[in-house]
Amino acid sequence: MREITVPLPGRSYPIHIGPGLLSELGAQCRQVGLRGSLAVVCDSAIADAYLPTALASLESASYRATPVIVPFGEGSKCLAQLGELYDAFAKAALDRGSAIVALGGGVIGDLAGFAAATYLRGLPFVQCPTTLLAQVDASVGGKTAIDLPAGKNLAGAFHQPSLVLIDLDTLNTLPERELRAGMAEVIKYGVIDDPELLTYVELNREAILAHQPEELAHVIARCCEIKAEVVGEDERESGRRAILNYGHTVGHAVEAAAGYGHYLHGEAVAIGMAAAGRLSRLWGGWSEMEEARVNQTLTAYGLPIRLAEPLPEEALLAAMRLDKKTRDGEFRFVLAKRLGEVVSAPIGEAEAREALKVIAPAESVP
Amino acid sequence: MREITVPLPGRSYPIHIGPGLLSELGAQCRQVGLRGSLAVVCDSAIADAYLPTALASLESASYRATPVIVPFGEGSKCLAQLGELYDAFAKAALDRGSAIVALGGGVIGDLAGFAAATYLRGLPFVQCPTTLLAQVDASVGGKTAIDLPAGKNLAGAFHQPSLVLIDLDTLNTLPERELRAGMAEVIKYGVIDDPELLTYVELNREAILAHQPEELAHVIARCCEIKAEVVGEDERESGRRAILNYGHTVGHAVEAAAGYGHYLHGEAVAIGMAAAGRLSRLWGGWSEMEEARVNQTLTAYGLPIRLAEPLPEEALLAAMRLDKKTRDGEFRFVLAKRLGEVVSAPIGEAEAREALKVIAPAESVP
Repeated sequence: MREITVPLPGRSYPIHIGPGLLSELGAQCRQVGLRGSLAVVCDSAIADAYLPTALASLESASYRATPVIVPFGEGSKCLAQLGELYDAFAKAALDRGSAIVALGGGVIGDLAGFAAATYLRGLPFVQCPTTLLAQVDASVGGKTAIDLPAGKNLAGAFHQPSLVLIDLDTLNTLPERELRAGMAEVIKYGVIDDPELLTYVELNREAILAHQPEELAHVIARCCEIKAEVVGEDERESGRRAILNYGHTVGHAVEAAAGYGHYLHGEAVAIGMAAAGRLSRLWGGWSEMEEARVNQTLTAYGLPIRLAEPLPEEALLAAMRLDKKTRDGEFRFVLAKRLGEVVSAPIGEAEAREALKVIAPAESVP
Repeated sequence: MREITVPLPGRSYPIHIGPGLLSELGAQCRQVGLRGSLAVVCDSAIADAYLPTALASLESASYRATPVIVPFGEGSKCLAQLGELYDAFAKAALDRGSAIVALGGGVIGDLAGFAAATYLRGLPFVQCPTTLLAQVDASVGGKTAIDLPAGKNLAGAFHQPSLVLIDLDTLNTLPERELRAGMAEVIKYGVIDDPELLTYVELNREAILAHQPEELAHVIARCCEIKAEVVGEDERESGRRAILNYGHTVGHAVEAAAGYGHYLHGEAVAIGMAAAGRLSRLWGGWSEMEEARVNQTLTAYGLPIRLAEPLPEEALLAAMRLDKKTRDGEFRFVLAKRLGEVVSAPIGEAEAREALKVIAPAESVP
């Protein structure tokens, strides 16, 4: 088992990574000092596979644990489902000594995390991410959110978990498309901070896609370390933390314009990284070779670097303007200077349109 | 004009109290450094009277300000209305440089404050409370919330305002019943911290109920000072801040059991203070004379110290168990030791039932 600490003033918390960890959930919750009753929020797709193990572990550690099952899918990351969680927490008679466990992918972590951040004005919570994407990204950093009709993640809170438990066995049931999508974020960490990680995922592609635990543990731990370090420096995203959004400005716009669920988040981020790569080159940081290398790595993992069908440019731009990182109407992009180093910079509308051309579907390029 | 500072580490903020302050809103927002566009959330009952002044002041300070009108009443403090605010903020194209102004009573402050705490994971906000209750209580301290079907204020966030502007002129249109209800919280501050304030409101009742600005300003400023001091010591309600809940455990239960809106919050708190007074006496702190004095003062302000119609004891106890201050199922009450000093203590079910007897309707007492 690997352990990483996220260093936050007065609220540092551990991330455990290894096989079979769900059966240690109860003991680990005791370890971080949780004492009251718990609600375990889990999505319907994985409840049969993992909820019994989690509940048994909690019960063997003498917790009263109430399962709360949420329908699978991004559609659950909404205000109505948040209301359902609140009602379930009230029904389970949670009080200020209680805590919330999020067992599932990014949707569950974001939704249950936001509910934990706000129910009784804040309860502790524990993340047990079961998708690669959630393990390398969503479960670390304390961002919680729901989607609004106007856009993704528009309402939410910063709320740090008390504990993150990454059971590698949960990846065994993850659909291959989702495993590949998670690799988009891994490749992103390579671009923004760690050229060696990029090389590692290029060299170990077959082992990673074959779910080899050693290679997966290495990749997940490295991503968590990078994110933990960045978040430790900038919890509230006023500065350095913005670098984690490489590829996300266009990625979020693609998700919104195509309709949530059409592309997986990681797929949209892969497309967004292709756009950010071109923009980085136009802006003067990135070389043609670096742009090509990252695009090749994304492609090798079966990830898209273009849209499958055209999306209206105006819809994409409108969604980009709604991005939370926008201030006073100008676009802000994270741009690559060189492998392992990115910066946040303002971008004009003309360049933004240029970046959108590179992700247009292949057949529409003359 | 009086100015009070709420002392919080790194985020102290000013409270201004005086007549005609709404017309200085724009200048004061500039003063605290707000730069982006603003949304002004206002309730439908006072929009005609005060929104034009607020918007004109903001526009004269060169702000782009979008009004968002919310239906009057506690019913608006709900998840659906929160969603409406989020949608209105998106439509107004608010971004991370934007801020929210809450113009209205406690419902607007709580609802708009929670929306500000969570939209884009947190925007600055400004409180312009227009009811006595909101001025002496809800606008200071950073608690924001919505009600859930299971209870009042069950979901929310701690989110400190950047500025509180208390325009005494807004009390001129406040219905007398609401002015009286606000006095319940004022009397509470006397009980928990300041015997002189209690004496002041006893001696100056006619001037206060006649809206005399000098007396009102004194009372409001004193309450804000007490609350600012308590909140400054204990922002997240882990200890001393609990004293502000004197009378609120039963008060909230009465509101919930009678149906929100049947009693005004201040009226329910007055009834709750009668119960807490009796409990304080049973517990051994409070003398019979002290209990009688506070009940008399409440009565002199036209406030109830008993229920108007009977409520099922079990419903009240169930609501008290749901109170956010509950931990591990035991009741916690704030109890008076002597005038100006209260403590938080665990209370058994038998004593809790005893306290509920004292607030039973007069005709049901044998």
